[in-house]
Amino acid sequence: MLESSDIVLFSVPLHRTEAIIRDLVPYAKPHQLLLDLSSLKVGPVREMLRSASFVVGLHPMFGGRISTFRGQTIVACPARIPTPDWLRLRSLLSAGGMEVKESTPEEHDRMMSIIQVLFHMTTMLTGRVMRRMGIDLAEVLEYASPGYRVELSQVGRLFAQSPELYSAIIQGNPGTGEVLAQLREGLELYGGWFEKQELSGFVKDFERSARYLGEFCSRAFRDSSVLHETVVKCSEGGSGGD
Amino acid sequence: MLESSDIVLFSVPLHRTEAIIRDLVPYAKPHQLLLDLSSLKVGPVREMLRSASFVVGLHPMFGGRISTFRGQTIVACPARIPTPDWLRLRSLLSAGGMEVKESTPEEHDRMMSIIQVLFHMTTMLTGRVMRRMGIDLAEVLEYASPGYRVELSQVGRLFAQSPELYSAIIQGNPGTGEVLAQLREGLELYGGWFEKQELSGFVKDFERSARYLGEFCSRAFRDSSVLHETVVKCSEGGSGGD
Repeated sequence: MLESSDIVLFSVPLHRTEAIIRDLVPYAKPHQLLLDLSSLKVGPVREMLRSASFVVGLHPMFGGRISTFRGQTIVACPARIPTPDWLRLRSLLSAGGMEVKESTPEEHDRMMSIIQVLFHMTTMLTGRVMRRMGIDLAEVLEYASPGYRVELSQVGRLFAQSPELYSAIIQGNPGTGEVLAQLREGLELYGGWFEKQELSGFVKDFERSARYLGEFCSRAFRDSSVLHETVVKCSEGGSGGD
Repeated sequence: MLESSDIVLFSVPLHRTEAIIRDLVPYAKPHQLLLDLSSLKVGPVREMLRSASFVVGLHPMFGGRISTFRGQTIVACPARIPTPDWLRLRSLLSAGGMEVKESTPEEHDRMMSIIQVLFHMTTMLTGRVMRRMGIDLAEVLEYASPGYRVELSQVGRLFAQSPELYSAIIQGNPGTGEVLAQLREGLELYGGWFEKQELSGFVKDFERSARYLGEFCSRAFRDSSVLHETVVKCSEGGSGGD
């Protein structure tokens, strides 16, 4: 089948992607277009490039349960493909309403070390700490105003998804070591300030991060306020029939 | 002024709350009602109870920039107050649409070690790591689909607020030491699994947390999907005039 197809799209579990491509690429033909949909790009694209085929790595930044492609982002790494063919593929992708973000595999994995590894890891940690502290979730929800319910629903959302996928995203990203080191360094500092009850340590670090994020903060405050109001409306709608 | 008032409401910076109450409580009278609005309850309520007055600790679980009290939660610790007076105060609070969650100061601070300390600390850490890794925020946003934009806007939202307040919430909670220890333990395990490329470590831990969160996960998935669609609509609305 692989030998007779014009386009071959690898869509397999992330932790097996590289090995599967490596096994199949010897059967690829020069006129074919190889694509993959995995959440990491350096490894899969490198394996596809061992062929003589055209190669584009893709990473849809969304799960399979969305109701529309509108507003969603797909990252594309056109690694080896003639420009006209790439432009045709690109317009096919954006026709559905997706934003196509072009990138190299290296840039992509670097960005995912933040967007995926850092965010998922802190969310996984949050779930882990709640579990380890034996917190009663129903009780927590009684205390939570909309803003905290947004946080909690992001935690629940992660754990509603594939353990293998999220684990492989963390395990396979070359930047994970740096993210882990930075998280540990941060916690080390927080621990020290907490023990010494050194308020100024927390305050100065907070102010540095706020300066780094700059005007994004006030925009984020406005945007998230709209979200929190949506949460209020949703829960009113949801309990209306009770 | 304190001596002639029927109701005294302490609303002062969190890291100075205990000291301010301690200084003023000697002037309180038995017929008065003392209230405070601070984000911690054990310390402030203990200080107010040194008076002979009626004492209710309050913690509005929302900031000062909300457009309505509807759907918001206020925690109340009626520490010393005749039941009829408390019921009157309680119905005053809920008249505005707020949910009143009754609690003891100890229960409150324990819950806040999760809802506030754990969530804020991981969010502060996230901002810190992005800053320390020198990540270009504008670039990150180009990669982010709605789900990740929700995460990023929660980060920006925190840093749009008071450094002193968030620092004092972390510093003053008796449970912060346990949260810090659990976060460190989690990172230690993650680091080990990453170094050994031990996928099953991450997977098993993920599955344990998913079991702990139980059916909340699928509900959270549905709720957050609605949120993510709101983000799409908002950004379409926002860019409509461009």
